Amino acid sequence: MTRPVITFLSDFGPAGPAVCRGVMFGIAPDANIIDVNHWVPRYSIRDGAASLVFALPYMPVGIHVAIVDPGVGTARLPLALKTGRGDVLIGPDNGLLIEAAKRLGGIVEARAIENRTLWLPVVSSSFHGRDIFSPTAAHLAMGTPFESVGRVVPIEGLVRLVRPEPRVLAGRLETQIVSVMIYGNITFAGTTLDLTNAIGPLAAGRPVRVTFARQDPGDGVARAVVEDTVWGDTFGSVPVGASVLMADSEGNLSLSDNQGNVAMRLGLSVDRPVTITGR
Amino acid sequence: MTRPVITFLSDFGPAGPAVCRGVMFGIAPDANIIDVNHWVPRYSIRDGAASLVFALPYMPVGIHVAIVDPGVGTARLPLALKTGRGDVLIGPDNGLLIEAAKRLGGIVEARAIENRTLWLPVVSSSFHGRDIFSPTAAHLAMGTPFESVGRVVPIEGLVRLVRPEPRVLAGRLETQIVSVMIYGNITFAGTTLDLTNAIGPLAAGRPVRVTFARQDPGDGVARAVVEDTVWGDTFGSVPVGASVLMADSEGNLSLSDNQGNVAMRLGLSVDRPVTITGR
Amino acid sequence: MTRPVITFLSDFGPAGPAVCRGVMFGIAPDANIIDVNHWVPRYSIRDGAASLVFALPYMPVGIHVAIVDPGVGTARLPLALKTGRGDVLIGPDNGLLIEAAKRLGGIVEARAIENRTLWLPVVSSSFHGRDIFSPTAAHLAMGTPFESVGRVVPIEGLVRLVRPEPRVLAGRLETQIVSVMIYGNITFAGTTLDLTNAIGPLAAGRPVRVTFARQDPGDGVARAVVEDTVWGDTFGSVPVGASVLMADSEGNLSLSDNQGNVAMRLGLSVDRPVTITGR
Repeated sequence: MTRPVITFLSDFGPAGPAVCRGVMFGIAPDANIIDVNHWVPRYSIRDGAASLVFALPYMPVGIHVAIVDPGVGTARLPLALKTGRGDVLIGPDNGLLIEAAKRLGGIVEARAIENRTLWLPVVSSSFHGRDIFSPTAAHLAMGTPFESVGRVVPIEGLVRLVRPEPRVLAGRLETQIVSVMIYGNITFAGTTLDLTNAIGPLAAGRPVRVTFARQDPGDGVARAVVEDTVWGDTFGSVPVGASVLMADSEGNLSLSDNQGNVAMRLGLSVDRPVTITGR
Repeated sequence: MTRPVITFLSDFGPAGPAVCRGVMFGIAPDANIIDVNHWVPRYSIRDGAASLVFALPYMPVGIHVAIVDPGVGTARLPLALKTGRGDVLIGPDNGLLIEAAKRLGGIVEARAIENRTLWLPVVSSSFHGRDIFSPTAAHLAMGTPFESVGRVVPIEGLVRLVRPEPRVLAGRLETQIVSVMIYGNITFAGTTLDLTNAIGPLAAGRPVRVTFARQDPGDGVARAVVEDTVWGDTFGSVPVGASVLMADSEGNLSLSDNQGNVAMRLGLSVDRPVTITGR
Repeated sequence: MTRPVITFLSDFGPAGPAVCRGVMFGIAPDANIIDVNHWVPRYSIRDGAASLVFALPYMPVGIHVAIVDPGVGTARLPLALKTGRGDVLIGPDNGLLIEAAKRLGGIVEARAIENRTLWLPVVSSSFHGRDIFSPTAAHLAMGTPFESVGRVVPIEGLVRLVRPEPRVLAGRLETQIVSVMIYGNITFAGTTLDLTNAIGPLAAGRPVRVTFARQDPGDGVARAVVEDTVWGDTFGSVPVGASVLMADSEGNLSLSDNQGNVAMRLGLSVDRPVTITGR
């Protein structure tokens, strides 16, 4: 009796999602469409993937539509992934879906979306979210078998994001910014264990230095940013406005300002190389 | 058994819609309230109308509430429009609803909203969205007959937006910006056919020039903006960051930056006059 | 047969709410989760409280989750408040919930949220919205008795926001900004009656002066702002762009720009002291 679940992420901002919602409710009127995030920075596959990893493990089993699609109108494949948990992820084959699928029991089968009877009758070249992804997702939510969306494609051939890995060196961890989260909190590649292996035991209050590599913030002068901070357990362990390096709720290293926005304060964005040392 | 559909558009931003949602769910607890867009630029009837035209044709048949209402508290009429498809559009008589109603089978009957038994008991002068439009919409969703909202008003007397029409001249199309869409894509009045009639056949890659009329972007100096671009089929047909003139998914002329925001890059807004020529 | 209602307010912005929605739907798949506002300025308890006061009286009876929680990870109590109307408010004990609860029939019982069987199995130190508040709310929506969440705490011991009160003096009202609403409308502590008692009868068009106390807008120079305006009944009673002092839909004094954003125009924010006089 429970409504079929469709979750929905896009980089559409405020006006675009409604059209897709309409298409889905037209096919699956009793669906429970749950918004994941529609404010993903435009065409940022990495940010969209991070938002899915953050949210989908807490979602009910269902159909998950995700659209961050810089390749729309090119030959990139429309993709449906069946997970070990029983979900289906729907979106472009550009790496957006892979990491979240791993958190849902892994990919058990991948198929190309090519069954046009599950699409809108007319397909535009620029809005596959409306014309292909949304109607296919809604048909699946209504019980259309996964196998009917199209041919099997090899899992090992799927496009993957290059996943940054930290380098554990003597006295320093070399990593990079992998995500800018809500409130401007920054997440780095690597865990508490990685940092401990690099610089030794991390007690609350231990001074650490986070150095962001030289980069031009937009005024034509490339420069590094050095943030002297401390290791901590909670935001609240440092004064308001001060930064703290800690493990986020997923266990990854993150830098936050207590009641502030550290990304905005320091002018930081995704992919910037970072070195973490003691001090 | 399917939930009655109410769609909801406003210029309220983040905090205002909840009150209206509450009022509607109080009257129609099983409604499926679908957000269309609440980030319409404040009091921009044209942008609100464009967002409705974009979304409502893809929505299930239902009650559609739209509130962009610079005249609230004045004598402007609260309006309910019955469409050929069976929908009812609810909102102020200021042109907001007309174009979308045309896409839903046309207006078959218009009525003034004046039956106070369908309103909240107390009506403020500044929040008709909460006090008049939302409760009337919810009662209609619950089965109250359309005829009961108020007297019939003549369709030909409804307030209409002046709809810009392009002028097809020898060697140039004179038009204007009618909408700034998601991602800063710009839509012009007119179609591919209009432009072909003006400047001849449009092959992919054909150079065209888009000239935006002199306007003061805010620094006190009025100036024209000239964008040399090409005709194309998809965003992806030009390099990242480059612009392309194409037909949007509705068949109207539009200018976009591949993976960029052309409206922001060039400082453009709705209603600006435009000339398109070959080059 | 009606779906249980859960309303949801936070300062999470675009990406955070989904995780909590997922947790709630996982426990209460048929819930009607109604968003109140997720764009509360980060950690602004007063703005969050104002948004609840604005919206909850129009919401159906239900469970209301509100998360603006600068003290997460400290000893502040997670709280559940039963109201006279039959609602339950869920959130931190920091004053966020109190004023809204008063509008829902008052607080009839307060309990600490300490029954871990209603939480997620693993609780982080930084995301109690996901781990404690959301699952507890969903269990209550499914019928778990209010009494099971934890021990009774004395209502008189709950943390309260200091509620600013206006001072009615001869010829002037001393008050302060208590809220910046949608569109930048400003609300002051005090009512039409308070202002009438201070400066005499208020007819539409009566000139009044609103003086905002000296404050540094961010450039290092503290200064007062004087706005000469008029008393009015509606936004539309003054020219476009002009300001008007009026009673808002709740009966409180407010200052608005007709089709503008007075808070942005004058550089104003919550808590700033204000004096209103005739002129």
